[in-house]
Amino acid sequence: MDERALKEVVREIIGTEQTLDDCAVFPSNGGLLVATTDMLHETTDFPRGMTDWQIGWMSAAVTLSDIAAMGARPAMVLLAVGLDTGQRLRQILTGAKACCESCGAVLAGGDLDAHRELTIVSSGIGFAEGGKVVRRHGAVPGDLIGITGPLGRAQAALEGYSRYKRVLLEPVPRVNEGLILASGGVSSMMDISDGLVLSLYDLLDANRCGYSIDSNLLPLLEGVPAEKSREYALFGGGDFELLFTCPPDRHPVHGVTYYPVGRVIEEPRVEVDGRSEMARGYLHRWDE
Amino acid sequence: MDERALKEVVREIIGTEQTLDDCAVFPSNGGLLVATTDMLHETTDFPRGMTDWQIGWMSAAVTLSDIAAMGARPAMVLLAVGLDTGQRLRQILTGAKACCESCGAVLAGGDLDAHRELTIVSSGIGFAEGGKVVRRHGAVPGDLIGITGPLGRAQAALEGYSRYKRVLLEPVPRVNEGLILASGGVSSMMDISDGLVLSLYDLLDANRCGYSIDSNLLPLLEGVPAEKSREYALFGGGDFELLFTCPPDRHPVHGVTYYPVGRVIEEPRVEVDGRSEMARGYLHRWDE
Repeated sequence: MDERALKEVVREIIGTEQTLDDCAVFPSNGGLLVATTDMLHETTDFPRGMTDWQIGWMSAAVTLSDIAAMGARPAMVLLAVGLDTGQRLRQILTGAKACCESCGAVLAGGDLDAHRELTIVSSGIGFAEGGKVVRRHGAVPGDLIGITGPLGRAQAALEGYSRYKRVLLEPVPRVNEGLILASGGVSSMMDISDGLVLSLYDLLDANRCGYSIDSNLLPLLEGVPAEKSREYALFGGGDFELLFTCPPDRHPVHGVTYYPVGRVIEEPRVEVDGRSEMARGYLHRWDE
Repeated sequence: MDERALKEVVREIIGTEQTLDDCAVFPSNGGLLVATTDMLHETTDFPRGMTDWQIGWMSAAVTLSDIAAMGARPAMVLLAVGLDTGQRLRQILTGAKACCESCGAVLAGGDLDAHRELTIVSSGIGFAEGGKVVRRHGAVPGDLIGITGPLGRAQAALEGYSRYKRVLLEPVPRVNEGLILASGGVSSMMDISDGLVLSLYDLLDANRCGYSIDSNLLPLLEGVPAEKSREYALFGGGDFELLFTCPPDRHPVHGVTYYPVGRVIEEPRVEVDGRSEMARGYLHRWDE
């Protein structure tokens, strides 16, 4: 069964609404709660050469980034850790705790188990402020497309541009950015992890409109040739920035740095510089 | 590193308070939220011969039972599933959803991954009613010790008493019992999974008192010799009943069936029929 067939099974049993977004959404004492879980394996999800501290940091970061993508405030993270060796636990937990604290969340507990390959499942809970979350659907033609930071840095690090190593190994979840964008009235949002183009295809999946990127608006990476920089941004993995759409009358949202990189269009396709772009990216290249 | 050393690392980094109980506890819009996560592996956590539907059911049940043990009402479960083969997904999710619905909770989503050995991490959220949870600590000498059902049935099924197979393979989380006991004022609670004696040692860990069991009060299992029945109850794994302590003036708690099986004592030890009992149980005998 391929990934698409598996997704169909999930949607059939759990429901489409709940499974489209970065988090599940649930009413909580008059407000809204968001919750998410991510399974990570050493060989496929953690770049080689990462320290255990960084593995812990990233395990928390993926979950905190999912919560940020809903425009919610993270409250707690739980880690289920399948350890290949007990010696790694302290640094993993210390890194995860540091990442949680940097986002105002608590590393609240978890579960331990033995496992041949280090396996970490990070689950988290956040609360929507003002009783509202931002979902992947909601974009309308004419909305501008924004990103919270330069893309392609993680991929550049993987390709040997060592100045971007820290972005790759210790990604910073865009929690404050997500909260400000949500209260600023953006129409849809998600976090990017497998490149801009694949993320736009995820948005395509949840909306009845298309996405047009102007590659000249993509911030270039210092020290990387322009053509490579542009390619990493469009197709590179590992970035933790937010991708959102914003009604023109809400732009600019104050108090947050972001880059407008295109427009939502009527035609349901992803285009770059006016030409249709296929769904492709550098998925899971950690082990190369 | 042994399990005790690992636990020490967890407590040091995450804090003792949060890690003693079946769930982490967190304030939520004026109320209390509980959250838990459990990692399960096919060879160690699921009895051989289980169907995929039952594996799904049990994956949700362990989490719902943890929430029940706090006297909280389960709201949602998320499953992170590392699949050895995609064909299993439908039945796993269907079973998990059935278990969630039987407890008034929603299977709200999760994450999919590929894995050599089927690995499921079940995470869940619940809400405390009346702004109060029941923890593992809180027992006082003189309190009676209660259990919500006959113990040892899961172990009896493992030993070949097939009439108890369903208790082993499709355990029912004691959600209503937990809610009623919590509102009835029990002083401490947890769910049993590795036998009564090991669970009492877990309570010992969280309290400054001891536990005295009168083995004549343990309900005997129909069709099992009395001596075996008693042994399965004390040391057998796989039961999903709640274990709690109750101040004498709160007993009986109405609206719930339970069995008083002993008393909380001053001396910090676990005793059965007046004699000290070692911490032992039939841990993880699924693969035998």
